Amino acid sequence: MIHSILRQSTRRYTSKVPTRFLATVASPTQEAVKAFFPDEPSRPKVVTTIPGPASKKIMARLNQYQDTRSIFFVADFAKSKGNYIVDADGNTLLDVFAQIASIPVGYNNPAFLALSKEPAFQTALANRAALGVSPNIDWVDSVEKAFMTVAPEGMDNVFTVMCGSCANENAFKTAFMYKAAKKRGDRDFSLQELSSCMKNESPGTPDDMSILSFNQAFHGRLFGSLTATASKAIHKVDIPAFDWPKATFPQLKYPLQDHVEHNQRVEKESLQEVEDFITKTNKTVAAVVIEPIQSEGGDNHASPDFFRKLQAICQNNDVLFIVDEVQTGVGATGTFWAHEAWNLPSPPDMVTFSKKFQAAGFYLSPRLRPTQAYRLYNTWMGDPVRAMQAAAIVQEIENKDLLNNVQNVGKYLQDNLTEMTKTTPIENIRGQGAFIAFDLPDGAKRDAFLMDMRQRGVNIGGCGDRTVRLRPMLTFQIGHADILLDTMEASFA
Amino acid sequence: MIHSILRQSTRRYTSKVPTRFLATVASPTQEAVKAFFPDEPSRPKVVTTIPGPASKKIMARLNQYQDTRSIFFVADFAKSKGNYIVDADGNTLLDVFAQIASIPVGYNNPAFLALSKEPAFQTALANRAALGVSPNIDWVDSVEKAFMTVAPEGMDNVFTVMCGSCANENAFKTAFMYKAAKKRGDRDFSLQELSSCMKNESPGTPDDMSILSFNQAFHGRLFGSLTATASKAIHKVDIPAFDWPKATFPQLKYPLQDHVEHNQRVEKESLQEVEDFITKTNKTVAAVVIEPIQSEGGDNHASPDFFRKLQAICQNNDVLFIVDEVQTGVGATGTFWAHEAWNLPSPPDMVTFSKKFQAAGFYLSPRLRPTQAYRLYNTWMGDPVRAMQAAAIVQEIENKDLLNNVQNVGKYLQDNLTEMTKTTPIENIRGQGAFIAFDLPDGAKRDAFLMDMRQRGVNIGGCGDRTVRLRPMLTFQIGHADILLDTMEASFA
Repeated sequence: MIHSILRQSTRRYTSKVPTRFLATVASPTQEAVKAFFPDEPSRPKVVTTIPGPASKKIMARLNQYQDTRSIFFVADFAKSKGNYIVDADGNTLLDVFAQIASIPVGYNNPAFLALSKEPAFQTALANRAALGVSPNIDWVDSVEKAFMTVAPEGMDNVFTVMCGSCANENAFKTAFMYKAAKKRGDRDFSLQELSSCMKNESPGTPDDMSILSFNQAFHGRLFGSLTATASKAIHKVDIPAFDWPKATFPQLKYPLQDHVEHNQRVEKESLQEVEDFITKTNKTVAAVVIEPIQSEGGDNHASPDFFRKLQAICQNNDVLFIVDEVQTGVGATGTFWAHEAWNLPSPPDMVTFSKKFQAAGFYLSPRLRPTQAYRLYNTWMGDPVRAMQAAAIVQEIENKDLLNNVQNVGKYLQDNLTEMTKTTPIENIRGQGAFIAFDLPDGAKRDAFLMDMRQRGVNIGGCGDRTVRLRPMLTFQIGHADILLDTMEASFA
Repeated sequence: MIHSILRQSTRRYTSKVPTRFLATVASPTQEAVKAFFPDEPSRPKVVTTIPGPASKKIMARLNQYQDTRSIFFVADFAKSKGNYIVDADGNTLLDVFAQIASIPVGYNNPAFLALSKEPAFQTALANRAALGVSPNIDWVDSVEKAFMTVAPEGMDNVFTVMCGSCANENAFKTAFMYKAAKKRGDRDFSLQELSSCMKNESPGTPDDMSILSFNQAFHGRLFGSLTATASKAIHKVDIPAFDWPKATFPQLKYPLQDHVEHNQRVEKESLQEVEDFITKTNKTVAAVVIEPIQSEGGDNHASPDFFRKLQAICQNNDVLFIVDEVQTGVGATGTFWAHEAWNLPSPPDMVTFSKKFQAAGFYLSPRLRPTQAYRLYNTWMGDPVRAMQAAAIVQEIENKDLLNNVQNVGKYLQDNLTEMTKTTPIENIRGQGAFIAFDLPDGAKRDAFLMDMRQRGVNIGGCGDRTVRLRPMLTFQIGHADILLDTMEASFA
């Protein structure tokens, strides 16, 4: 059994053997693996129900001012370390939720703490630049070190903003401006266009263009991004939206090797639907936006072949191809960008990012820069502080070879979870690197599992209707995987 | 002449007399006024054309990756101090643009620099919380110290986000949810509502509701906020928008005392138009959004009476009243919130903020909290680091009595600028505190003036078609005002 070959027994992690040793012997390659955080806790420790009395006390106080119904517990970040989060009651949890997939290199990573003490960083903190007016002298260094060193091939322009929704909305705007400029040709804006848009009327405000997204997609919660989103009705109901279309995202069956014909068919049908939307409807599709893995919508995957063909359809019809890597980007899938796994013949037109990168924005092909200034613009245009952190993340990923770590631990997790389908109710194991998910029979059982896991010391989250998603940090190692897997087994026992 | 009585001669500020002494003798109240930054430069110093060769070199490098056409110069923030910004070429400029009205208490303010060294601040920086899931233990302290101490009367709930556009869009969403819930009454969402919204179709996605804003308004650049914006066509053309209406913002004539009848009439007409939109059109107006001073749109003011009547119309028709204080908030008008000057009989329903507060979000009346969780939600829900800075800003405003300073220097500037209309081409002086603007005869003359002022050592910005806007920091004192006024006179000479 892969499980028993690769994974240590439950006894091991509860023993006094240090994590470092465990990680070493537990490695699937049997190489000596150093713990990235030698001083992090060696195991979870739960001392109260979660949320405990200290968390509840703070939540009650906070509830006077803010809605606290979504809060799991209150975090004591000063005490958190590496892959472990400590809460206000002193509970120590192995964290595979990681602030909704937004912590890249561990809590209180020394490189991050050191950055906080650098004069240039403190200067940027105390003097927030309007980057479109008077950027700091070292902004261009951040752009190169943070964004350009990991720019998707051929995409050497970047527009930075403050959050993932803003990243997607500005990418959509870029697509509309590009498409409108192509339609317009060489002529300048007409007076009618310029005056009508001030009243939100056509022709200046186009009523015949759209962004095509997919069912179950999540691209954000602002008006344009929420229009493209379709993961949960409660996010969308009562909020005005544009009448932009949604194509069916292929619903693959697992294990993949047992459902080859079905999976090829649903991918083909989805692509046909996309092509029909683009070629047979009255509205011009300016761009197709897609997540490499539909994350909030249930961790839905498609094959590299599907994405290559999707890009080809876009290219054949002069539709821009936007890849939303807000949740998938920055290493969790084992490559810096998830879409690298597709081996596209040419780069996407835009790639959006946020979350684990700390800085938000999107890469774009230089040809998409608007002809006129001030069309892609706002007050801050991003945050120099978060860009400096993004540069530190890139450096840390390289220094510690974290992509390789993610590939190893991802394979280890996927193999063991697949094995676990034989003895527990989990099913539909799917993943790319350590970006892994599985299903439970229904939403109620999933929710109970999440609560129980937290109470057993593993902070874990769900997505979709009945899915559990694993979003460990890039510093998650084999020893941590063992704890996760053993805790799952204990929970199901 | 007020001018000559109140203001020091050009000679004074070019002398070796320290700023502290100048500020003291120049005070309109003749009280002893301490310089907030004893060690800031005593005057501007321009050594190259702006942008100079060092700025241009960096801009050329940056231009490979980002559009640099909007950049004035590259800033050397480490060398900037107080009210003075230093650029990459060593030019020292008195800054009354302040990163598009976004620097509150001076460059390298010691309180800000000290904050950067605090352990709790560094912990928050290195461990970014998803505030809706596991907020940091001191988040509630920030909420109280930053937001609640200055909450508009009766508004003790706050929702934090990442930028001003996001603040407005979430306020709009709140209005739609509130209005839809009222229409729905006690019943739960229907299955039809929940399924139709996933396809962006009614009834789940309402096509009969709107946000009413005003001509020349600026509320942001994302799809919902840009719909409500109408300041410049180049921001809006080619971008899809909702068909939400715009009312005429009253175009007051100056000096106010010479145009009482006209001004009362245009305000009355505007209010009538608002009432007609609300009561006579098919679409339900969920909220009216308005800036206390239309800033990007040309610094357009209206009387407190106008705003009181506008609120009354909203209340009589169960329409929410949203005040967008993204640019006017945090002290620049002489009160913490600009709308305090209106003496409203009851608070607005929502007040949005960003820019000078460093943190972004909106205040809301507790009754507007959505009944269901996760409807106002996102990954970060604001930034603990920026909230800690906001708390420091509130403290600094109180410690240094900066609102009083703004009132004094604002009056001084307004009086002297009014006087200057007799001898220079400036006209239509209007202001609230130190949030002041004036017009030049046309856009070309305005743009030339802005360029010339920068070359003379004053960093200054425009808005609207032919307006110059003053956006000094709250630490701008009489001595700085003298430099500004003398430089203006020299420019016009």
